[in-house]
Amino acid sequence: MRDLKGHPELCAINTATLGFTARIDKVIDAVARHGFGGIAPWRREVEGQDIKAIARQIRDAKLKVTGYCRSSFIPATTVEEFRANVAANKKAVADAAILGAESFVMVVGGLAQGSKDLTAARRQVAEATAELLAHGKAHGVKIALEPLHPVYAADRSCLSTIDEALDLCDRLVPDGEDMLGICLDVYHIWWDPALARAIERARGRITGFHVCDWLRVTKDVLNDRGMMGDGVIDIPAIRGMVEKAHYDGLVEVEIFSAADWWTRPIEDTLRVCKERLATVC
Amino acid sequence: MRDLKGHPELCAINTATLGFTARIDKVIDAVARHGFGGIAPWRREVEGQDIKAIARQIRDAKLKVTGYCRSSFIPATTVEEFRANVAANKKAVADAAILGAESFVMVVGGLAQGSKDLTAARRQVAEATAELLAHGKAHGVKIALEPLHPVYAADRSCLSTIDEALDLCDRLVPDGEDMLGICLDVYHIWWDPALARAIERARGRITGFHVCDWLRVTKDVLNDRGMMGDGVIDIPAIRGMVEKAHYDGLVEVEIFSAADWWTRPIEDTLRVCKERLATVC
Repeated sequence: MRDLKGHPELCAINTATLGFTARIDKVIDAVARHGFGGIAPWRREVEGQDIKAIARQIRDAKLKVTGYCRSSFIPATTVEEFRANVAANKKAVADAAILGAESFVMVVGGLAQGSKDLTAARRQVAEATAELLAHGKAHGVKIALEPLHPVYAADRSCLSTIDEALDLCDRLVPDGEDMLGICLDVYHIWWDPALARAIERARGRITGFHVCDWLRVTKDVLNDRGMMGDGVIDIPAIRGMVEKAHYDGLVEVEIFSAADWWTRPIEDTLRVCKERLATVC
Repeated sequence: MRDLKGHPELCAINTATLGFTARIDKVIDAVARHGFGGIAPWRREVEGQDIKAIARQIRDAKLKVTGYCRSSFIPATTVEEFRANVAANKKAVADAAILGAESFVMVVGGLAQGSKDLTAARRQVAEATAELLAHGKAHGVKIALEPLHPVYAADRSCLSTIDEALDLCDRLVPDGEDMLGICLDVYHIWWDPALARAIERARGRITGFHVCDWLRVTKDVLNDRGMMGDGVIDIPAIRGMVEKAHYDGLVEVEIFSAADWWTRPIEDTLRVCKERLATVC
């Protein structure tokens, strides 16, 4: 397993960690200044801006773009809505290409509004992913399916486990070519009793690896994630599995923390991220 | 699939649904008066009371005791604590026998305090379950492992999926005899992408079936469960799978709802339970 101590260049910052309180140019500067090797920006920071200028600034700062976050939710109640969701994602994939992102991160969405049909939601996700994969290939951008914790199955992601994501990869890319992969976040997968086996199965298909922590007392499952080391996840054990499965990309910090980390100065948060990556990840 | 309309005798009330606002004797009366076929009491209502008198009242009311809720959490940081947890559960199994309970429901517990070792927690659960199974056999009480939603992995249950529960059953009872089974609650399992296959695998080993609903906007994952029909779970689809897997026990309502149903008069809650069981389950 790689030693992260003294190697922030092996690590990346997902900008959500900083709560979107600073402009993207300031965030890029700060992330680079702390020595991180990469950044994962969000569409809300990029769309409507001068994307080429943002891309240039990131390139000049020698930062990789680990992932571009994230897909619009797929499942829809009408064909028109479904097509609009796919179209929005195609536009974002094109932007990911401009940014030089290594992947476009797909948070696929939960049940369509008013629906109780998870199977239908999953069918729509498969259909849209096939289309976005073709689009990604044309733009040179990998599509990264991110399974989300089952607690989000209703409203954010009907893709809940590593195995489910890999099953979809197998269906869409039977020959295993590498433009479709999966993104693993310890927050979403740590509980899985089949974790070691599932990560081994993902060998060669892991396009991203996110860290944060699960607080034993979680006040809000969406926006009360912990800083690495403050919760119950055995992060080194999971990173070991992921690297054993041939992941050699950056270790990316993504923390949603409305009441805590998002209220702090971004310099403080970046400093603590760097320290925790070196000591508890 | 059985028709529940006009058949409340096929249904049971888990007393947690009523928020523990009334004394157990009043609850038994009310549940029987509404025509339900069973009741699942909690230890907090029973321990320290005249258990034989409670058992007699339930028997006289012609109610089955679907399950006795629930185990003390197993995982511990010291051997002494582990032994104390097992001992508390043995006492509860003996009480379950006095009550004539069809099963003792095991909510196994999450990580031991201060631990990040899910594997160790699961090992302790396996060890304790083996011991409680032997104790249950001696008392004629089935042990029912209840997998809980992965959102509780840290603090309430390191047993998170049906498959994990069945794996444990397979290990402890390779010959499949029926004193160890699993209890399924739609709230905990509805998201599972492998649900149909997992329930089929559970054929003949399902000792309990609980219903409630997952609210699309959930304010508190512990105590904001919905009344059947108010959320996103396709309950009839899951009940269909469970009955196809040869479950012929009662359909039990268990709703943790601190801010809503627990604030209502128990007569109202029981009336709505009966109506929803007949119409949306």
